[in-house]
Amino acid sequence: MDDIDIETVAEPGLDDPTLIEGLPGVGHVGKLVAEHLVEEFDGDVVRRVYTTDFPPQVTVDDDGVAELTHAEFHHVDADGTDLLVLTGDHQAASNEGHYRLTTSFLDVAEEFGCERAFALGGVPTGELIEDDEYGVLGARTGDADREELAEAGVEFREDEPAGGIVGVSGLVLGLGARRGLNAACLMGETSGYLVDPKSAQAVLEVLQEVLGFEVDFSDLEDRAEEMEEVVGKIREMQGGGGGGMPSEDELRYIG
Amino acid sequence: MDDIDIETVAEPGLDDPTLIEGLPGVGHVGKLVAEHLVEEFDGDVVRRVYTTDFPPQVTVDDDGVAELTHAEFHHVDADGTDLLVLTGDHQAASNEGHYRLTTSFLDVAEEFGCERAFALGGVPTGELIEDDEYGVLGARTGDADREELAEAGVEFREDEPAGGIVGVSGLVLGLGARRGLNAACLMGETSGYLVDPKSAQAVLEVLQEVLGFEVDFSDLEDRAEEMEEVVGKIREMQGGGGGGMPSEDELRYIG
Amino acid sequence: MDDIDIETVAEPGLDDPTLIEGLPGVGHVGKLVAEHLVEEFDGDVVRRVYTTDFPPQVTVDDDGVAELTHAEFHHVDADGTDLLVLTGDHQAASNEGHYRLTTSFLDVAEEFGCERAFALGGVPTGELIEDDEYGVLGARTGDADREELAEAGVEFREDEPAGGIVGVSGLVLGLGARRGLNAACLMGETSGYLVDPKSAQAVLEVLQEVLGFEVDFSDLEDRAEEMEEVVGKIREMQGGGGGGMPSEDELRYIG
Amino acid sequence: MDDIDIETVAEPGLDDPTLIEGLPGVGHVGKLVAEHLVEEFDGDVVRRVYTTDFPPQVTVDDDGVAELTHAEFHHVDADGTDLLVLTGDHQAASNEGHYRLTTSFLDVAEEFGCERAFALGGVPTGELIEDDEYGVLGARTGDADREELAEAGVEFREDEPAGGIVGVSGLVLGLGARRGLNAACLMGETSGYLVDPKSAQAVLEVLQEVLGFEVDFSDLEDRAEEMEEVVGKIREMQGGGGGGMPSEDELRYIG
Repeated sequence: MDDIDIETVAEPGLDDPTLIEGLPGVGHVGKLVAEHLVEEFDGDVVRRVYTTDFPPQVTVDDDGVAELTHAEFHHVDADGTDLLVLTGDHQAASNEGHYRLTTSFLDVAEEFGCERAFALGGVPTGELIEDDEYGVLGARTGDADREELAEAGVEFREDEPAGGIVGVSGLVLGLGARRGLNAACLMGETSGYLVDPKSAQAVLEVLQEVLGFEVDFSDLEDRAEEMEEVVGKIREMQGGGGGGMPSEDELRYIG
Repeated sequence: MDDIDIETVAEPGLDDPTLIEGLPGVGHVGKLVAEHLVEEFDGDVVRRVYTTDFPPQVTVDDDGVAELTHAEFHHVDADGTDLLVLTGDHQAASNEGHYRLTTSFLDVAEEFGCERAFALGGVPTGELIEDDEYGVLGARTGDADREELAEAGVEFREDEPAGGIVGVSGLVLGLGARRGLNAACLMGETSGYLVDPKSAQAVLEVLQEVLGFEVDFSDLEDRAEEMEEVVGKIREMQGGGGGGMPSEDELRYIG
Repeated sequence: MDDIDIETVAEPGLDDPTLIEGLPGVGHVGKLVAEHLVEEFDGDVVRRVYTTDFPPQVTVDDDGVAELTHAEFHHVDADGTDLLVLTGDHQAASNEGHYRLTTSFLDVAEEFGCERAFALGGVPTGELIEDDEYGVLGARTGDADREELAEAGVEFREDEPAGGIVGVSGLVLGLGARRGLNAACLMGETSGYLVDPKSAQAVLEVLQEVLGFEVDFSDLEDRAEEMEEVVGKIREMQGGGGGGMPSEDELRYIG
Repeated sequence: MDDIDIETVAEPGLDDPTLIEGLPGVGHVGKLVAEHLVEEFDGDVVRRVYTTDFPPQVTVDDDGVAELTHAEFHHVDADGTDLLVLTGDHQAASNEGHYRLTTSFLDVAEEFGCERAFALGGVPTGELIEDDEYGVLGARTGDADREELAEAGVEFREDEPAGGIVGVSGLVLGLGARRGLNAACLMGETSGYLVDPKSAQAVLEVLQEVLGFEVDFSDLEDRAEEMEEVVGKIREMQGGGGGGMPSEDELRYIG
């Protein structure tokens, strides 16, 4: 096996497709969005990407069949809009691996003709978010239109995110810019403690607006309700009502 | 020395051999099984595998002679069934090393004509196991026959093992599947705190059934009795009777 | 992307330029000096250096545009003295990366004709420094003139710095010496707990003297006053007057 | 700079030389012996070995001159016996680096015609050693004569050292054996807490006996007396008399 090994599963011809990257990260926001798109629009796997920079690990399905960990590109037809959706269970394990892996992701996207990309993620606020006011913070390459994004609800704030953007999402912008890619990173505000379907919904709303499709949110809403119950119980246990931040210990087992 | 250096010790012709992988892991279950097979059936070393991904370490034998750490393939004739048994003292030290090492292991197995493989290990339950009810959990490649394994006592359970299978055993399945290998991982239930000869025996019973040989268990039983005494003393020290789980501190020096 | 990727931004002809290295380190002394020179003399970027040994990270500017993390060489015309000033946000993340990166830095400097180099940094004293007595400790290659440096105020002390010099600054000397480079490391004394503009000023005074330019210190002085206020508040909180060393916990958030 | 860069300093013709390896390790025993031989017999540097697997670090001498960290081979004429003595300040920082570095060390030794090697180190006993009974534990390649070593006072004990031998010393045996080198590892017993000149002396006595030279021990004895004073003070502070083991905290600053 090479450092990176790309398996071709299908070769659909795509019409001006947009790359959507949703690997695991803060609040699993990006991964929730990407998986929701694949499920709702019944996407098909087109490429599997294996790399020696992922953990030496297999997952086991319900029939006992093991599968080597990998990232997947899916073709998603969203109301006639072609998306190339990238999901997976891992980021790379080293600096060099991140660069190598993201380069190969961008190569695959280029091969399918993607001229635009969205890297999805969460930005941690450190507090549970009240009243469903989930902002979506943005960053972009020079080739992305700030106004178009702002009109779709993306906020650009000075000095945020404070530490820059780390991981594959960061490099989709950083390496993408160097290839002239029109790329934006959409970061849903999230506490950072919980898997956050509401933050994922906020990010999806931006994508719908910019790319012109509509997707059913009910599965995400169901999942959000489950999380609400968990949070509600934690607040009860704290004897408090609104707004408090559960301790890290209380939240650790949820994330 | 290259990254991986394979030394040919003997070139026996094997008849439809099965690869048995038993490197160190949870409860040392896989290693116990592999070593037991080599000892009981008087196996011969056929290959030594050195790699810069093992620790820079030598072991010293009773005559003071140092030997560079390595993994070994043994030819084991088990009642007329040819086994290619892989043992050693280390897993690889990096993600990349795991992939590289397992690839070379599978290359050696292919060279000897193995079309079937068993990767052996333990699955931690977090509790001392009562009444000798040592289950054997399974995972497999698509080319392995689930029914045949289930009939030999292997359990396939939904969502188990929870975190997938990590290390060389995982990759024997993950990389093996990509070569069309008929491979199964047999994971003996074990507390995870102790070297566990009883769990090893449970795994051996499955192998006997599937591969059609019989092996004497008395050495493993002796070793299991020694471990029982240790566990008994710990329970006494705790002032309790059955079933309690010794603290991690109490058990650390045993494993 | 290669392991190291050097982007040419401008190709000015420089007259006997001196390399000034100021990457992040103890007290951010070197980085403060390098950035002050670039700002005061209105320097121009001439090279950007990208490497897979930097974190997989982008910074985001006030317009929301992301930029892949990199180091930069600037041409600075300091009162007619040509400087090639190297700044950035990161050191390398591995031993091998440090060697590879510094080698490429020295290659760039050689290409611009630098025969002399100053590697800038801080040396931690473990105590807040009183009465503005900021010494500048030196080390050098055999081709650097000890007397010239001593006359400019650089101190050479036996067995200091105790642990040698680690990181890019160390290698500018270590690898530079092997190419016959006239190089010195200037290490401003600093507590090690705080970003230290006063220590940076002490290092700048040495550079002015040796290289024959003058630079306005007012921006550094303003920043030093801000730091003084922070330190003053900490001392008040401690209820004490002069000289005490704040606890590590108190200082951690400042650095 | 390559991964490993060997600088030729001198090319003496050596008569049947023996490699003596003394890099840093337990009790700095090997390093003390190697440096003592170089100093007493006025050895000359013949090779410097630089590697990107050493820390990115320079040491600074009393004249302020920085030197890139490296390992050194010295030619030592010990009463007419040619020794090739390897010293340095670091072991490698990675598994792969250890293999690569030791391979290059053995290449240099081979180039000088060494057919015999001694890898020197300490073996930790966990207790301060009483009454100057410093044993020297041995391990060897198959080509080394056990009887000759035993007659010189080397002890070969079953199952010792328990964890095998790790680092460059281990690989001098492990990789050396694969080249047919007559190599032995001499491990002086030492508490493991202190730099141990007495243990070094015990190892030197074995070397003298086997290789047929005599060396003045007075410098080592002086240094041992200094260490004795330190240990004496610790025992006083403990209020106790003989034999107690100082706590790790008390000893940490000495080692």
